[in-house]
Amino acid sequence: MNKTRIVLGVEYDGSRFCGWQWQTKQRSVQAVLEQALSKVANHPVNVQCAGRTDTGVHALEQVVHFDTSAQRHTDAWLLGGNRHLPDEVRIIWAKPALADFHARYSAVARFYRYIIANRPVKSALLARQTTWCYYPLDAGNMHEAAQYLIGSHDFSSFRAQGCQSKSPWREMYFIDVYRDDDRVIMDISANAFLHHMVRNIAGALMEVGMAKQPIDWLASLLEVKNRTLAGVTAPPDGLYLGAVYYPELYGIAKHPIFAKLPPDARRFN
Amino acid sequence: MNKTRIVLGVEYDGSRFCGWQWQTKQRSVQAVLEQALSKVANHPVNVQCAGRTDTGVHALEQVVHFDTSAQRHTDAWLLGGNRHLPDEVRIIWAKPALADFHARYSAVARFYRYIIANRPVKSALLARQTTWCYYPLDAGNMHEAAQYLIGSHDFSSFRAQGCQSKSPWREMYFIDVYRDDDRVIMDISANAFLHHMVRNIAGALMEVGMAKQPIDWLASLLEVKNRTLAGVTAPPDGLYLGAVYYPELYGIAKHPIFAKLPPDARRFN
Repeated sequence: MNKTRIVLGVEYDGSRFCGWQWQTKQRSVQAVLEQALSKVANHPVNVQCAGRTDTGVHALEQVVHFDTSAQRHTDAWLLGGNRHLPDEVRIIWAKPALADFHARYSAVARFYRYIIANRPVKSALLARQTTWCYYPLDAGNMHEAAQYLIGSHDFSSFRAQGCQSKSPWREMYFIDVYRDDDRVIMDISANAFLHHMVRNIAGALMEVGMAKQPIDWLASLLEVKNRTLAGVTAPPDGLYLGAVYYPELYGIAKHPIFAKLPPDARRFN
Repeated sequence: MNKTRIVLGVEYDGSRFCGWQWQTKQRSVQAVLEQALSKVANHPVNVQCAGRTDTGVHALEQVVHFDTSAQRHTDAWLLGGNRHLPDEVRIIWAKPALADFHARYSAVARFYRYIIANRPVKSALLARQTTWCYYPLDAGNMHEAAQYLIGSHDFSSFRAQGCQSKSPWREMYFIDVYRDDDRVIMDISANAFLHHMVRNIAGALMEVGMAKQPIDWLASLLEVKNRTLAGVTAPPDGLYLGAVYYPELYGIAKHPIFAKLPPDARRFN
């Protein structure tokens, strides 16, 4: 039977999910999305995502693809899917994909955002959508420290113990840390990320921001290639998968932040 | 017995409350705050607020005062109060008040913010903290229309039917409507507001923003002094009590937005 590949942009609040990935007896983003799309397709749908977010991690624009034998107008996937989804998961766009497009393997770069509420009292409005740090952070020092990580490196010091990736090497394209009123924001982009890599980098940078470690601590951490020395894993609450960048031939809108990518950025193999 | 008056800044997410005011069998912000402060004081505490927010309305900085016979360090009200409060209500500052200070009657001006998610799909992350409008809004036209309301006017056209205020006259200090990416934001400040006044103004401005009404519609609405002609009441989800301004003698920090107040702004009587 003739199959069509569809690609979706998906926004979600991860605070009441066990994470992206399907798990027995737990509520995952993948499961609620597959249930909703299966109702629209009238057959079981299996989805593939660009980045498998952990428990409590959010997405501004996760990218997802699936195959279907159903003939539907593109709008039906968006409107029908959203009708069957809980409020905290929204399909924000839908379009037909090229047959060889793969949400995970076609990606050139991922962009994550980490948001720290840097104020004396925890946020009442965004308690589950920001990481709280009452100790004043020096965002300038955090930014400077982060620049040691730019480029192609062995990121073993920032890799979770259970990480299943074959290689600890990743190419870091940019990390920008800046203050916006009482928030400190980290925008980070690499070709791909190891398990817990963003949160481990955020945790190390917060140590620098609190002046518990010097700015060049990040250089020495990278050097030792040993996770046990690199400090705490920052909480998931403030972490968002922001956007994914694909080669232009796939026709997927490029998030403006990817203008910062080096011109020779290419797919991770 | 010697009584001390304490003043607090309070932030809250109103989405799971019946509103500020105590009501039988319903969960109000006032009730959870009085319960928490009564535990710290070890006697029943009754609080007065600057603006009684409706069901679903949030606060960035509600101002509240209460009297107590308990001798406590100021920090105890903040730390102890927050320990007994649900996550979605936070005391953000606490200080001793002058004996004649009153959160409601001493206020010179209130500032509210109304946030509209102006995008094709409802927000997954801020569903209960923004008002959703999928129809594209012209924020420039909304801003221009809002300027007809500046000054001292009879706001009967923007007053809820059950409003208990003796007078429909209020002095509007400023209304700024502007776009921030996919959000349209209204910052509005008056000496005081009638019941539903901010939401009724937001509803009328949204009609202008969608080009369903001309820009000078706001002038004619104001003129007729008749609520039945003024269109819809915008939903509570996007509404925040932003800050309250008091005469400097009370020593309460002035929110930077109040720099826009006219120099002769004075307390409403």
